[in-house]
Amino acid sequence: MAAFKSMDKEQLTAVRAALMAEYEGYKAKKLSLNMARGKPSSAQLDISSDLFHSLDETNCISADGTDCRNYGEMTGIDEAKALFADILEVDPKNVIVCGNASLTLMFDFLAQCMFDYGDHIAWSRQEDAKFIAVVPGYDRHFAIASYFGLKLVNVPMTPTGPDMDLVEELIKDPSVKGMFCVPKYSNPDGYTYSDETVERLAAMEPAAKDFRVVWDNAYVVHDLYDEGDRLKEIFSAAKKYGHEDYFVEFASTSKITFSGAGISCIVASDHNIDLIRMRLQVQVISYDKLNMLRHTNVLKSAADVKERMKKHAAILRPKFEAVLAILEEELGGLGVAHWTKPRGGYFISFYLEKGSAKRVYELCSAAGMSITKVGATYPYGIDPDDSNIRIAPSYPSIDEIKTCARLLCAAVKVAVSEAQ
Amino acid sequence: MAAFKSMDKEQLTAVRAALMAEYEGYKAKKLSLNMARGKPSSAQLDISSDLFHSLDETNCISADGTDCRNYGEMTGIDEAKALFADILEVDPKNVIVCGNASLTLMFDFLAQCMFDYGDHIAWSRQEDAKFIAVVPGYDRHFAIASYFGLKLVNVPMTPTGPDMDLVEELIKDPSVKGMFCVPKYSNPDGYTYSDETVERLAAMEPAAKDFRVVWDNAYVVHDLYDEGDRLKEIFSAAKKYGHEDYFVEFASTSKITFSGAGISCIVASDHNIDLIRMRLQVQVISYDKLNMLRHTNVLKSAADVKERMKKHAAILRPKFEAVLAILEEELGGLGVAHWTKPRGGYFISFYLEKGSAKRVYELCSAAGMSITKVGATYPYGIDPDDSNIRIAPSYPSIDEIKTCARLLCAAVKVAVSEAQ
Repeated sequence: MAAFKSMDKEQLTAVRAALMAEYEGYKAKKLSLNMARGKPSSAQLDISSDLFHSLDETNCISADGTDCRNYGEMTGIDEAKALFADILEVDPKNVIVCGNASLTLMFDFLAQCMFDYGDHIAWSRQEDAKFIAVVPGYDRHFAIASYFGLKLVNVPMTPTGPDMDLVEELIKDPSVKGMFCVPKYSNPDGYTYSDETVERLAAMEPAAKDFRVVWDNAYVVHDLYDEGDRLKEIFSAAKKYGHEDYFVEFASTSKITFSGAGISCIVASDHNIDLIRMRLQVQVISYDKLNMLRHTNVLKSAADVKERMKKHAAILRPKFEAVLAILEEELGGLGVAHWTKPRGGYFISFYLEKGSAKRVYELCSAAGMSITKVGATYPYGIDPDDSNIRIAPSYPSIDEIKTCARLLCAAVKVAVSEAQ
Repeated sequence: MAAFKSMDKEQLTAVRAALMAEYEGYKAKKLSLNMARGKPSSAQLDISSDLFHSLDETNCISADGTDCRNYGEMTGIDEAKALFADILEVDPKNVIVCGNASLTLMFDFLAQCMFDYGDHIAWSRQEDAKFIAVVPGYDRHFAIASYFGLKLVNVPMTPTGPDMDLVEELIKDPSVKGMFCVPKYSNPDGYTYSDETVERLAAMEPAAKDFRVVWDNAYVVHDLYDEGDRLKEIFSAAKKYGHEDYFVEFASTSKITFSGAGISCIVASDHNIDLIRMRLQVQVISYDKLNMLRHTNVLKSAADVKERMKKHAAILRPKFEAVLAILEEELGGLGVAHWTKPRGGYFISFYLEKGSAKRVYELCSAAGMSITKVGATYPYGIDPDDSNIRIAPSYPSIDEIKTCARLLCAAVKVAVSEAQ
């Protein structure tokens, strides 16, 4: 395809026709494929069938004697705090265990920041409050910030984390109130922040003293290979600088057990935990402690979680590898696209030449394949380069995902040939 | 005790000493009693042990084919909507089924009102926004309003509902944005709004067009007797006036199944459901659908719920009746206190002469019995009459609750004699 440049008009027309014919071949199959959703497959959910049998009326009392059926224990049971503390390498006293969705916790935490409390001045009353969006990133983060009227400022993601030079420049502005980070197997690139990036984040001296990093550790144990990426623990890094208050961490078992019925947690400094508790005393009586116990009766430690994640990896890894193999086979060396090769997480990030992602999206849609909407990985749904496509290989079957990858490549080739 | 007035000083001293001796008798027992908490007893929780066995990997798909283990169905599964619709006599399309706490839903709904959306101007940006508190009432309602900076205005509760003359006067002020109602078996009085009250509420023409009534139907099926109080359905009443948007209803299974692990719902007009959905699309991926199915596999209709509530009533009724019998025996006809005689709900409301509730609280506490803090049933923790005590008979055993009631009466007599 690099040869396009040297073709005359007639040759080009012939090549375009051939590529279009290949694409039309897929279209004729009247496919119905979905590569858009970062959700586990049924086979992955089956791994956690033991959760249906881990709790009944004989063992619904937690270790400290709490009847988990009743009200109480606003911040969660000790067993669940211990589990998340073990996974996240933090102190259980800094953990609050909550309901089935860490996304809700992030929404609620930003909502809290929007209002006055203690000596905090509501972000909603501060001029032109902004949040840093590392891009490409997670559309639901951006949606939360937008909901609260926080203006999003793009910072490019790199293989080692956000462009830290730019971050360090932006935080000199006191109206920049925080940033979203998915530090391990980032969504959608699958990059893990390097130790140096974590250290620079920990050392940040933002002009806004109420600066908050939403540290969404969504893929902390979601390795595809036995040797996963290693992420430096943020609070111990921040402690050296007295900066623990700048970071609030979120995680959940959504992609460990049941996506819709897991447990989640907030991790924060002593000071921030106090402030979050103040809100929870008004917002919540208690989260679902039975579901916490249902989980901790089966998952007693980070080691148990790691074992379970190996079973997920055994299902996910072939899907990722199939996509990567087909991309390489079809597009490798053509110079028309590049893509990430994550060792964990839920996504592969695919980059086209500027201005062609939307066309590829159209072609895929027209052939019966849903892919993540172009722009979704950027604030306000606008990919300034019209270049990034998020590939989600988890949900379709391995055969489907192979067809998806082939069809994507066919669409890419058509789009590229059209642009000549 | 009515004879106090005619006693000389010596007689009074003797009577006081006798009453104090009775009280000291309780104190000497070094009791540890708790009549403060409106929570179910273990025996009540045991009623719902079937929930531990109603769901597993073979039946976790909802009727429409949704895999309840996975993400999706943001507004809840159809079965759960149908159940709440049946209980609350509304259309399932106006129901959103959520997590384990309706309190959180009320918090989140008021949070939504505090921000701009559509053509709604954030209450936080409107001058001096106020909310009506029907008193005595539920401390957690008041705490939510206070958290958001809404000023609470007291309206007295009566046996037929809020003082509607006063409500109709207050809503002429456009800064009055809404009110909290517990329309059936109100907390703490146990009164149910009369048909006339519901009709007057439905007909209200508030100056604030963004007026919202938080209709907390917490005790909708919580009858102590076969023939429970009957509450007129609010939305059908409001519909006649085109006022459905003024009401948002909340309910849960907290005191039907497990207090800490039930399911809850919001009921609202089509317009309000749309607005709530707009927020949920940002705040939530999905609530715990497995817990919904766990419930609806066992509770298929309002009739099933009613059967279950009879089992609760069989446990609760003797406790309520024991308290009422002792209050009557010890204080009946003395003219020093009066109390409500609810036919459902979780509380008895006890009224002393002005200025004596705090002293009774002190005496009870000193003798090892926790009762709800005086003032908790009023905004800002201030009972202007220092008169109301909330009695919660549900949690202690029947023997304990009898001791509680006797000790309360002894404390009341001491406090009354001291005041002479």
